Amino acid sequence: MSQYRPPLSDIRFLLQHVFDIDAHSRATGASLDLDTALAIAEEAGRLASDRIDPINRAGDVHGARWKDGEVSTAPGFADAWRAFREGGWSALRFPEEYGGQGLPMAISAVVDEMWHAASISFALCPMLTNGAAEALLTAASDTLKATYLEKLVSGAWTGTMNLTEPQAGSDLAAVKTRALAQADGSYRIHGQKIFITYGEHDMAENIIHLVLARTPDAPAGVKGISLFVVPKFLVGTDGRLGARNDVRCASIEHKLGIHGSPTAVMLFGEHEGAIGYLVGEENRGLETMFIMMNEARFAVGLQGLAISERAYQHALAYARERVQGKALGEDGSQGTSILRHPDVRRMLLGMRSHIDAMRALAVYVAMQKDIAHAPDNDAGERDAAQRRMEFLVPIVKGWFTENAQHITSDALQVFGGMGFIEETGAAQYLRDARILTIYEGTTAIQANDLVGRKTLRDDGATAAALLDAIETDARRLEAVDGRAAASLRAALAQSCAALRAALLWMRETQATDARAVYAGAVPYLECWGLLCGGWMHARRLLAATTLADAGTLPDASAMSAGYFAEHALSRIPGLAASIMSGASFALHFPDSAW
Amino acid sequence: MSQYRPPLSDIRFLLQHVFDIDAHSRATGASLDLDTALAIAEEAGRLASDRIDPINRAGDVHGARWKDGEVSTAPGFADAWRAFREGGWSALRFPEEYGGQGLPMAISAVVDEMWHAASISFALCPMLTNGAAEALLTAASDTLKATYLEKLVSGAWTGTMNLTEPQAGSDLAAVKTRALAQADGSYRIHGQKIFITYGEHDMAENIIHLVLARTPDAPAGVKGISLFVVPKFLVGTDGRLGARNDVRCASIEHKLGIHGSPTAVMLFGEHEGAIGYLVGEENRGLETMFIMMNEARFAVGLQGLAISERAYQHALAYARERVQGKALGEDGSQGTSILRHPDVRRMLLGMRSHIDAMRALAVYVAMQKDIAHAPDNDAGERDAAQRRMEFLVPIVKGWFTENAQHITSDALQVFGGMGFIEETGAAQYLRDARILTIYEGTTAIQANDLVGRKTLRDDGATAAALLDAIETDARRLEAVDGRAAASLRAALAQSCAALRAALLWMRETQATDARAVYAGAVPYLECWGLLCGGWMHARRLLAATTLADAGTLPDASAMSAGYFAEHALSRIPGLAASIMSGASFALHFPDSAW
Repeated sequence: MSQYRPPLSDIRFLLQHVFDIDAHSRATGASLDLDTALAIAEEAGRLASDRIDPINRAGDVHGARWKDGEVSTAPGFADAWRAFREGGWSALRFPEEYGGQGLPMAISAVVDEMWHAASISFALCPMLTNGAAEALLTAASDTLKATYLEKLVSGAWTGTMNLTEPQAGSDLAAVKTRALAQADGSYRIHGQKIFITYGEHDMAENIIHLVLARTPDAPAGVKGISLFVVPKFLVGTDGRLGARNDVRCASIEHKLGIHGSPTAVMLFGEHEGAIGYLVGEENRGLETMFIMMNEARFAVGLQGLAISERAYQHALAYARERVQGKALGEDGSQGTSILRHPDVRRMLLGMRSHIDAMRALAVYVAMQKDIAHAPDNDAGERDAAQRRMEFLVPIVKGWFTENAQHITSDALQVFGGMGFIEETGAAQYLRDARILTIYEGTTAIQANDLVGRKTLRDDGATAAALLDAIETDARRLEAVDGRAAASLRAALAQSCAALRAALLWMRETQATDARAVYAGAVPYLECWGLLCGGWMHARRLLAATTLADAGTLPDASAMSAGYFAEHALSRIPGLAASIMSGASFALHFPDSAW
Repeated sequence: MSQYRPPLSDIRFLLQHVFDIDAHSRATGASLDLDTALAIAEEAGRLASDRIDPINRAGDVHGARWKDGEVSTAPGFADAWRAFREGGWSALRFPEEYGGQGLPMAISAVVDEMWHAASISFALCPMLTNGAAEALLTAASDTLKATYLEKLVSGAWTGTMNLTEPQAGSDLAAVKTRALAQADGSYRIHGQKIFITYGEHDMAENIIHLVLARTPDAPAGVKGISLFVVPKFLVGTDGRLGARNDVRCASIEHKLGIHGSPTAVMLFGEHEGAIGYLVGEENRGLETMFIMMNEARFAVGLQGLAISERAYQHALAYARERVQGKALGEDGSQGTSILRHPDVRRMLLGMRSHIDAMRALAVYVAMQKDIAHAPDNDAGERDAAQRRMEFLVPIVKGWFTENAQHITSDALQVFGGMGFIEETGAAQYLRDARILTIYEGTTAIQANDLVGRKTLRDDGATAAALLDAIETDARRLEAVDGRAAASLRAALAQSCAALRAALLWMRETQATDARAVYAGAVPYLECWGLLCGGWMHARRLLAATTLADAGTLPDASAMSAGYFAEHALSRIPGLAASIMSGASFALHFPDSAW
């Protein structure tokens, strides 16, 4: 089995040379310098590879198991969670007043990648717990914060997000779960929620459910949804655990992947009603959810990067070892390692060049969030960073997770027939990755968000500003010698022009044929993903070429960038043409002829 | 669960209007008319949907099980096999003298698609049995034919292909299994074979293994490999089963998919040596295998088409039923079926347009084989058909099976969260499909074959002739009105030009930098797949527009064709650029920097 190796040298390259974490910390008022950041990354890497990676396969093979409403996690999960908590990793980016460490997103992004790479199934637990803590931090009363936040930040308790119901998946307007106000200010919750990640498990002493529900007089649709805290065990005013709440795990799902992560059907209020506490105001639950959504979608994007990195590492290790055939044009009458075969190298550099692009973009987006939240920054700067971050989040979520499908599939392909055998491990990455383009909003939902809220709502201003920034960096490549820089510069210029043409078409067409614009939403998101990836390669290449004594770094950066330009950015003109064709054939295909 | 519906109306359209099976039968001396062909397809469709489709899920969930060297297949498999045999389906394309029906490939291709669509795991058994029968028919002595062929053709016995060994996967030159000649003319076989499909099972009274092995004095490499028949039970001169041969199933694999198909580790000659009989001459085993390979690769291509069709049908049925959200720009305050959402339509027509293209290409290639084998045709015509068929087989194998990855993944995506739940069935298609780009030669191996043997060996003559034929049909689209025909005509012309440029580059570069040419092999194969798909859409559209009273057929054909032109053929310029860039970055990436 693979031993996951944290990508520490790439993290150093990004934080030191590409993005300059010291300058970033100064600009955002964070107390984090490069050495501390790298020490944190190294320590996280150790936990990820020594404690979490070893349980990944048990999570898959054994899985979480349900019996009589209780869920036991796979062997090793509870111990790994204890080690994780004790290391303080759950608290990394939360305020110090709740026991957190108040570190910037720029560092938590690189650390979170490692948890997901080591085991997505495991890392979903802290990811959801962070999400619940974030919701409370954003909108809850001081009393609720005092009762729940510290325990969630420390990882003593874990959290869940209860949105989906059988009839309400992507469409939260259809939520039916009811919340009845009680005399004491609490509510009684009744309803069924499905697809609840870590809805029930044996790793923590309490589980704090955040639940979307409707009060009886609430308006129809999304404007009538409220958010409630519903603990598994009620919490006394002294902080001690009290009675079991009226909430039960009815079953867990039998899934294609992430077997180690229990996906629960939760029943609220089978008897007297589950006791819940309103977070924020009635009917404004979805607003709180939307604030969190950027966070959660970014986190799922990181999962896409993480599983890609893991699959790539494993495939590369196999390609080095496996001897088969004689590579064309090379010595090796006794056979050569398949790493020498042209197509294996094509696949591996394809994976690598996408991973390089994704990790840089993840750090860039995390830094935008830090800038947007830095209290001393001026409002204009914060707002610009916020808008760019919000524009990029659906790209991170959509593009990273679609990439993960191709990369885990290519990684399996490198193994040949062995890839199809479960014991090899490559199949698990493919299976685990398959949920990523679905949960936290499908790729189409990300793409619709990118088209509607993020592009057309401001008439393309944020998009145009980003294109300007990319073109500026592309021009800086003129100072760099070599084919890679030349290819990348030309491809970025051509890609920006293609995106500008598509943008113009979208703005002109939205009023007369909005369905045609949205039929091109996914290709539009793909174009942006590729373009931002190419942009990040420009930043990497510019940083690498200024370094003296960097060993193979400049060469490797150039080749990864050049490959991305000639084999990934080359897809953009075709995709842009697809957008502008309006998919009219798909929209008008006769219903009777399907 | 899905009820598989055989695509009878498309089969009728292809056999009647696009390709004219009556004219084809006359030209190839086959005694098959349209009505008979459609009656056969209908009858096969009934067996596929009524008897084989229902066991598909049991195959997945229960799987084949090994105990003490015996393998029991999943519930229903043995009964389905009995029904299949009794219907005479195993015998469809074999000569009448061995109990077959002597039908052309054009009909067996459409029928074989149905078996694979109903259950790939089940259909692998007749597929391998046909392969073994084909090998004997091609190269075995009359005695061997008399002993084994009729039983294989009738399906009383089944067959296997034993090529792979742990160190000899794609590289058969590394085969180590030994064969020692005996005084009586038989051989004793010793060695281990892996990945043997249906190597052991309980569905037939005997299993006939075809085994690649080396005699002691054989030359090294592929020129020293011989082919042997090794029956599980020895067969007496009276045709009765005798003693158990010295061959044993040591275990079966735990795989990502096709759980119903046992994949065996076979041990030959643990004791005195397994008794085997030479097929053809010593050291010429690989030649026989190569003749069969076109057959087997074509069959795996059909599996790609088949699982795509099944996944598409299931996703379409769900999209019709599932109500979620309100589709943009449409009525439906109570929600609309997701079939009305633009991106769902985009995904579904993307699948459909690829399936339409693949099925037409499958029939076309099958007809080339019929023409090549028709005894009354002149040698020039037969030779041209043979060369075109050999050119297209790696495209069918490589492109169809890569398409199957995307189509089964998109089908799962249509289901949203439900797609990730195993009970839905969509995940099984994705898992089953994943082997298709690997076995019978990976996509890279198909692509290398297409570049080397099929394109460069005759200096691009076969490729150029095919481009001429495609351009001729593209010009015929001038007579067809509408945007679809115009888009398709333009895209085909542009694609042919791009392929001609790539061909020229390949011919010029092969002498100086063969590795660069082969680094572009997979994109080259993808270009050809897309181009041939577009060509088939031209043939379909030309046929559909000449029909009066064809209901929605002309519209549906035009929209499928137009979509393919604007969203699939649009990928060709980028792919052609990738080919001609030579992937130099991948080839020269520093080994120490991976």
